[in-house]
Amino acid sequence: MAAPLHVDAAGLRADLEALARIGATPAGGIDRSSFGDAHLAARAWFLARAQRAGLRTRVDAAGNHSAILGGGKRAFLLGSHLDSVPGGGNFDGALGVVAALHVLFAVAGAGAAPPVALEAIDFTDEDGTLVGLLGSWALAGALTSDVLRAPRGGREALLAGLERAGLREQGLYDARRDPAQLAGYLELHIEQGPVLERAGAQIGVVTSIVGSRSLRLRFHGEANHAGTTPMGERRDAGLAAAAFAVATESLVAREFPGAVATVGDLRLEPGAFNVIPGRAVLSLEFRAAEAATLDRLEHALLVCARREAEARRVDLEIEPVGRWEPTPLDAGACDAIERAAERLGLRALRMPSGAGHDAQALAGVTRAGMVFVPSVGGISHDPRELTSWEDCAHGADVLLGAVLELAGG
Amino acid sequence: MAAPLHVDAAGLRADLEALARIGATPAGGIDRSSFGDAHLAARAWFLARAQRAGLRTRVDAAGNHSAILGGGKRAFLLGSHLDSVPGGGNFDGALGVVAALHVLFAVAGAGAAPPVALEAIDFTDEDGTLVGLLGSWALAGALTSDVLRAPRGGREALLAGLERAGLREQGLYDARRDPAQLAGYLELHIEQGPVLERAGAQIGVVTSIVGSRSLRLRFHGEANHAGTTPMGERRDAGLAAAAFAVATESLVAREFPGAVATVGDLRLEPGAFNVIPGRAVLSLEFRAAEAATLDRLEHALLVCARREAEARRVDLEIEPVGRWEPTPLDAGACDAIERAAERLGLRALRMPSGAGHDAQALAGVTRAGMVFVPSVGGISHDPRELTSWEDCAHGADVLLGAVLELAGG
Repeated sequence: MAAPLHVDAAGLRADLEALARIGATPAGGIDRSSFGDAHLAARAWFLARAQRAGLRTRVDAAGNHSAILGGGKRAFLLGSHLDSVPGGGNFDGALGVVAALHVLFAVAGAGAAPPVALEAIDFTDEDGTLVGLLGSWALAGALTSDVLRAPRGGREALLAGLERAGLREQGLYDARRDPAQLAGYLELHIEQGPVLERAGAQIGVVTSIVGSRSLRLRFHGEANHAGTTPMGERRDAGLAAAAFAVATESLVAREFPGAVATVGDLRLEPGAFNVIPGRAVLSLEFRAAEAATLDRLEHALLVCARREAEARRVDLEIEPVGRWEPTPLDAGACDAIERAAERLGLRALRMPSGAGHDAQALAGVTRAGMVFVPSVGGISHDPRELTSWEDCAHGADVLLGAVLELAGG
Repeated sequence: MAAPLHVDAAGLRADLEALARIGATPAGGIDRSSFGDAHLAARAWFLARAQRAGLRTRVDAAGNHSAILGGGKRAFLLGSHLDSVPGGGNFDGALGVVAALHVLFAVAGAGAAPPVALEAIDFTDEDGTLVGLLGSWALAGALTSDVLRAPRGGREALLAGLERAGLREQGLYDARRDPAQLAGYLELHIEQGPVLERAGAQIGVVTSIVGSRSLRLRFHGEANHAGTTPMGERRDAGLAAAAFAVATESLVAREFPGAVATVGDLRLEPGAFNVIPGRAVLSLEFRAAEAATLDRLEHALLVCARREAEARRVDLEIEPVGRWEPTPLDAGACDAIERAAERLGLRALRMPSGAGHDAQALAGVTRAGMVFVPSVGGISHDPRELTSWEDCAHGADVLLGAVLELAGG
């Protein structure tokens, strides 16, 4: 058996460093919210980098950017995304896109082109400042008008973003690909958690992606003077929201081990020192590995929210804004990833993903697999997000080995 | 004894209605943040209204706007303010300024001018979107550079506001008046609480103004991925802040009856569904009638804040942004207000003020008194803030009777 191919580790690093300069923040991370200037610049960089290496490029009706090697009716996709959360890090998404490009470079360089096209793809709006998995859902034909009507980031932001990117809302549906034309999907991503680092493993073989739901909770109380309104007569919307946030923490710890719930944002109105908040808007997200657990957790969270609202005579309005079902990944893809790691002498660990990824959209229409590499300190969605250059190269090499096996025969 | 003078109740109402149109919000209240367009327009309306009635006008170096009747070296001041909290109501401040004007109109009309000048004054920035009591502190000579360096609304907003109003920071100190030139101060204001309405009283005689302190609390945790970071490994700054807010509620109820504490604002960063908040900035205000109680309350609150921060391995930074000492008002002024109400056949009630007012700045340099009128439902700092036109006129009549007694002899 021939020695496994490797990607150009130095080139991979140089390209990741170049990309990290686009939308760089003073804190050392990046801010590439979907369709913002930095995001559009990063996507332009991707196309130019691919063209410079002699690859064909393509932008579909959902704004997904692709670089393509080889021909044929079917394509094996390798991807991730170049958008980020506000104040994000340099590896989330970017590593998978740049590694996909370098896999194509390595295959082209070795003259090892498989019988299907290889396509490195940068999906639109994975991280959800607008919708979340927008591009991959569109490609998988799973985008619904319900989601577009009430997107996570607000309808106005979505429409403004599409216009900035030169896209049309109706056109998004045209990005759907016939599943018969898809040969498979692989994604390299940082773990974004502490599991691999703790276990001393270099490669994570992702067996499934947990499900997640997002709700927006609006508490309506009564704005009033903070000096003249006795404590017992207040209808403080901010306190109802705060008490709910605190209750989620103990509820999950007590009754839902392994699940997570997060209050990521909370806005009080009018928001002055001397006015009791009349209104509080809270962003809630929770995740679990099984749909039944998600159902039970949602029910328990909403019981908490109603209890804290009633205790303060505050009205509660609940708006679902996102729903991602738990998704098992392809067993054959998992095996191929594990074998690729083994051939490279890397220690691999099978694990679920607590984070959502484009792979979960693709899993509905083709065999999909994911490779994780360790996150230092488990930190991500933060400027200090870090994966060693060595681990980045290991991940890209595993991606290369797995795609050659899966797309090759 | 002659029948007591009355203000022109219909004219008072018409002027209050005219003023309510300046900065009107769709919700039926007003938004006249200090030095914003609507605030500057309201102040221009005040000067024009006074000049149309033949009064002299004056704007001092702190932007305080005055209308003056009569001459002499000494002036008896009647005032309040035309700025508002964001999303405020139509009576807070405006009633006192318009009533002061109508007292001058009534005195002028009756040819009853007392031996000192009567000055209706609209103080700058009472409600604290910038500093709080800025104009009255300046006039009383109590403004300090400490306060201006770290104002409640932020240093940048203060400098921008001063520039919009054509004022200079150094000039603010020049607004100081020699106490020997002040004959006294009276202020009519809505109660902003439920006490008078509950007691069936028409007039509140304010015996003291409670003290208040404002602090900005910054919780520094660790932003991280909301899906991949187990609950037990988070350093969630938002939860620390929320737990503190909830703890203030029970602390005050349990150990500080009569005092109040309010978390009026809370901002989480970065503020996304799928990111654990790394930073939370909280606006805290608390009030009590005695300085010793304020000290004990502040200590107890900060113990709570440190406890909740430590429980979540979050760092805490505490910034004092405002401090108003409890202020007793003048006993002679209280008696004069009570007698004026009695002559008009109105039921008066002695009470402390839970809200801060310009009177507390003036009390340091001259005999100061305050008249309260009922707030329907105790609601204020809200578009639904309401005082009946009849109660407005009663308050203005009491103001008129009291100033004639206090300034007359």
